[in-house]
Amino acid sequence: MAQFPFNKILIIGVGLIGGSLALALRRGQPSGGQLVGVGRTAASLERALALGVIDQALGLDDEAALGRSIGNADLIVCAAPVAQTEPLLQRIVPWLQGATLVSDVGSTKADAAAAAYRTLGAHAWRFVPAHPIAGREASGVDAALADLFQGRRTVLCPLAENPAAAVARIEALWQACGARVVKMSAAQHDAVFASVSHLPHLLAFALLEQILRMPDAALKLELAGSGFRDFTRIAAASPEMWRDICVANRSALLSDLDRYSAVLQELRQALAVADTDPAAAAALQALFERASTARTAWGAAPGQVPPSPPAEPGA
Amino acid sequence: MAQFPFNKILIIGVGLIGGSLALALRRGQPSGGQLVGVGRTAASLERALALGVIDQALGLDDEAALGRSIGNADLIVCAAPVAQTEPLLQRIVPWLQGATLVSDVGSTKADAAAAAYRTLGAHAWRFVPAHPIAGREASGVDAALADLFQGRRTVLCPLAENPAAAVARIEALWQACGARVVKMSAAQHDAVFASVSHLPHLLAFALLEQILRMPDAALKLELAGSGFRDFTRIAAASPEMWRDICVANRSALLSDLDRYSAVLQELRQALAVADTDPAAAAALQALFERASTARTAWGAAPGQVPPSPPAEPGA
Repeated sequence: MAQFPFNKILIIGVGLIGGSLALALRRGQPSGGQLVGVGRTAASLERALALGVIDQALGLDDEAALGRSIGNADLIVCAAPVAQTEPLLQRIVPWLQGATLVSDVGSTKADAAAAAYRTLGAHAWRFVPAHPIAGREASGVDAALADLFQGRRTVLCPLAENPAAAVARIEALWQACGARVVKMSAAQHDAVFASVSHLPHLLAFALLEQILRMPDAALKLELAGSGFRDFTRIAAASPEMWRDICVANRSALLSDLDRYSAVLQELRQALAVADTDPAAAAALQALFERASTARTAWGAAPGQVPPSPPAEPGA
Repeated sequence: MAQFPFNKILIIGVGLIGGSLALALRRGQPSGGQLVGVGRTAASLERALALGVIDQALGLDDEAALGRSIGNADLIVCAAPVAQTEPLLQRIVPWLQGATLVSDVGSTKADAAAAAYRTLGAHAWRFVPAHPIAGREASGVDAALADLFQGRRTVLCPLAENPAAAVARIEALWQACGARVVKMSAAQHDAVFASVSHLPHLLAFALLEQILRMPDAALKLELAGSGFRDFTRIAAASPEMWRDICVANRSALLSDLDRYSAVLQELRQALAVADTDPAAAAALQALFERASTARTAWGAAPGQVPPSPPAEPGA
């Protein structure tokens, strides 16, 4: 079982991601291995059992049973919204023993690491922060898919305290789900996802808000076309989840937002005089050109784009 | 022929939009009617002839032939990039006579109207500004489709000088192409498309630019997922075309950009303290909630969204 070195796994939060992890693991290891789903509501756990996603269900408030189950688990995965990671770690720490490892699936990693240091103390070595880069618009265990992680990246952000073998086991777990694992620091991870995910969500939410504030909002939405549709698709995402992600990654996100606002102000200045100032019109076009070239290359081969040389800050 | 009351139509610029208009008209009126394509390059006109998109091709530099052809045309449609509208109107005005009408297909309308007043003088009544809301990522006559406008909107922004019968004829033209025609002022049109199309393009270009400026740009693009893909799809658009559209609509676009920047600054302020200030966290979530609700409703029935009541400016 080198591919999947965990016999008993507790998944706390059996929604889209937790449920898909369970389905992917079951497919990767058809015989043996026990998958216990832990949750707050009986209904969603029963649904997960009925769908065959988990072998056993456990209420998060059943303290004694939870303690026993943690005591002989090989791995505990927190698959709840990121704001729940710290309280969950607090709940499980009294029962951790032996070689049990802990991981998560959250979209932000520096805050998960900080929560681990605050709550796990001498057990911090057990916690290997992880972020599978996969999702769907639908949520809940009914949306879970066995191949959700197939061919997608999972980022691991190991703590200095993690033994190499612990990291290797979590890596093997995600590889068994079909994911391609990459490792980087939590700070690097958070900077990457601030730019390519969290900031775009903020920008899409802000566009809807701006339109809704105007007296001709209904007409604008009536005439909006396919460009608007794609640009704002991510604005339909869960407000609670995205509030938590933005707050958890606010440091990287605020830096990115300030850099982005500076680019917008450059564009504004060029645009304001572009009808009479050929240099401003050329700067506008050059910026559009860099963006269009990079996006076209990315579309042809995502993940293999050599970025253009950085522009002059004043360009 | 009430449906399609033009016998001879000149289309200047036989690319995606001009070519699709020709194909749609040919389908709407299988017998009779003459479609003349006018262009700068012989190669693209020959291609349009070979594809059966037009009946006759005419070089834009063949002054004498162009004059004769305009002289007995019923309609001249400028389907070139928006920055070309004014020079084209200047070229055709000496030959306009009889009941000949002129129209366009540009994404910005106040500038088209202004160009008509500057160049057409006493002939301004002939010019009925139009904007078919349709497009594809591909361009050129090879990308033209007979059903490109089917079920889509075409916005007409009539001038005060247009006789009602002239507007009705242009309306019938687009209806013959399968489009649903709506009429509004050029200022209203430009405000709508600044918000739902031009600003989103600017924001998507700016996101790519911001990422490309950073030393970890390659890693960021490597890890970017489906949210980034959809949000930035429009950033692959033609830089020249979008420079011209942004410059042509800069007045509405600058207003929108300023309002948008103000929303971003509100978000920034809330985000900066949302970890310790519950009111700020609630404001953040409320904004995301309004956006998500509106976008979800729009996705279920585009064009039928009753917008939420406008938020308090300070919310």
